[in-house]
Amino acid sequence: MRALITGATGFAGSHLTDHCLAEGWEVHGTCLGADLRAPAIPGLTRHSVDLRDADAVRAVVARTQPDRVFHLAAQASVAAAWADPAKTLTDNLVMTLRVLDAVRLETPGARVLVVGSSEEYGSVEPECFPVVESQELRPVDPYGVSKVACDLLAQQHFLAFGTHVVRVRPFNQLGPRQRRGFVLPDFAAGIVAIERGAAPVLKVGNLNSARDFTDVRDVVRAYRLMLELGEPGAVYNVCSGTTVRIGALLDILIGASSVPIRIELDPARTRPIDRPATVGSYAALHAATGWTPEIPITRTVLDTLAYWRAELVHQAQ
Amino acid sequence: MRALITGATGFAGSHLTDHCLAEGWEVHGTCLGADLRAPAIPGLTRHSVDLRDADAVRAVVARTQPDRVFHLAAQASVAAAWADPAKTLTDNLVMTLRVLDAVRLETPGARVLVVGSSEEYGSVEPECFPVVESQELRPVDPYGVSKVACDLLAQQHFLAFGTHVVRVRPFNQLGPRQRRGFVLPDFAAGIVAIERGAAPVLKVGNLNSARDFTDVRDVVRAYRLMLELGEPGAVYNVCSGTTVRIGALLDILIGASSVPIRIELDPARTRPIDRPATVGSYAALHAATGWTPEIPITRTVLDTLAYWRAELVHQAQ
Repeated sequence: MRALITGATGFAGSHLTDHCLAEGWEVHGTCLGADLRAPAIPGLTRHSVDLRDADAVRAVVARTQPDRVFHLAAQASVAAAWADPAKTLTDNLVMTLRVLDAVRLETPGARVLVVGSSEEYGSVEPECFPVVESQELRPVDPYGVSKVACDLLAQQHFLAFGTHVVRVRPFNQLGPRQRRGFVLPDFAAGIVAIERGAAPVLKVGNLNSARDFTDVRDVVRAYRLMLELGEPGAVYNVCSGTTVRIGALLDILIGASSVPIRIELDPARTRPIDRPATVGSYAALHAATGWTPEIPITRTVLDTLAYWRAELVHQAQ
Repeated sequence: MRALITGATGFAGSHLTDHCLAEGWEVHGTCLGADLRAPAIPGLTRHSVDLRDADAVRAVVARTQPDRVFHLAAQASVAAAWADPAKTLTDNLVMTLRVLDAVRLETPGARVLVVGSSEEYGSVEPECFPVVESQELRPVDPYGVSKVACDLLAQQHFLAFGTHVVRVRPFNQLGPRQRRGFVLPDFAAGIVAIERGAAPVLKVGNLNSARDFTDVRDVVRAYRLMLELGEPGAVYNVCSGTTVRIGALLDILIGASSVPIRIELDPARTRPIDRPATVGSYAALHAATGWTPEIPITRTVLDTLAYWRAELVHQAQ
């Protein structure tokens, strides 16, 4: 089995690469320029491609002849989407179009996973929790709008061309290799810095915020299962079906740290309006594939701490 | 009351201009370059603007200070969207973003109508007819995907910024000034050509296709009412709630023509798969505004024939 993963060196992409390699697959990945993340994946064949370039995308699909295409690459930062909505909207949409067109023209029998986001649901009343896939889409940020557009473009290729597309709406993901700017890597890297001698103060935002978190390794396993067993054209949530407080993540980290740490509330890290966490339902995914989340949150947090301990040693050297 | 209409010289735009002028409003319209349609609207102040240009759009909104903004401009051809999906997707989305941003920054109290399409519903099972606004969106062509993206971007500006946006999903529109390439103008112009001495043969596609047609003049009246009485953030269908066969339009035209006409089926005009017509419900619009369609289809068809008789005389001179 031959996989092509766009954004293979990103957070989820690198874990999906690991997962497919562990399944014995041949794995090709696209990355933009010389992305040096995930340096420890010797089995990955990298292709440097600007996914907005139709000819380049078509060429890499023609050359690699994938059986499975996982389209993970995107401008994935909500903050960056607020800063330049036009760029996020057009780049995410055009990249998805290029991948779908390349498959249609070069490997029409390949199966394609297109990654959306729980941000597509946006503003949902809590009485609608846990959110199922038929929930009305009410994105509140331009990133969420861009993901709806990609999602429905993928559905359109299924409806119009019969492309074997499966769409996914992942909720919040956690784990090793997530870049700083997200809450768990910021906490973990901050604690490791204190362990190395920094002032023993960790600045935090609202610890009562809660999210529906899934370990990224459970998420990428779902991605593979969805392409094998999911219904063509369908869309599936990937989520845990429950929420965890940010404060609970911090408690696990502090319990595992080797030094005393003082927590300080930083108003700059507190959002003026913190929406209640959207809780998803993975019932459809479970019915189609048997998937359930397997990695407990404690292991996710401790593995992330271990990653940052190794990463910061590496960076210091 | 001061209106700014994007695409004011287009099919619906020119009728909306007429309608707003008849209400005693001051009307400004944008058009791309030197669009010479709708030459008979002396009350319209035209502004030549590329709506993809953020600064230009912001400048025209700042200069005209509209109370009501009707965003009608779009790449509106399904065929052109198939030919170049990336252009339709990005142009329609960026134009809508520019208009919403300009209102947010320059005239945040203005009300904005954003025009979607029944193509957003796409593939709907007939048991779901008549389609209400909460119907799942399953567009089958890239034009429909672009309209979903514009629709949800408008909703996002309501949710995030409180912009008074009302969204509309018009079904098929008919009437004078519709350009050729659509069925009724093609029939009417063909018949007028025969009346002027062309060979008495009219080539047609599938006459049993049916559509949910509304007179464009009823449609633009709905647009104005929606901004006055519709709920901010809401979306409304504009439709007739019933379907009319293409053949019935042709029967009305032939009955009104002054010459014998032979009908020939042209396989090139027949689509390989002709989806059953999607029928819409205007119950939500009626409840909010009292609107119902008022112009009977016979008058629409005869007015369109009269338009083409005058238009082709004009062109011949």
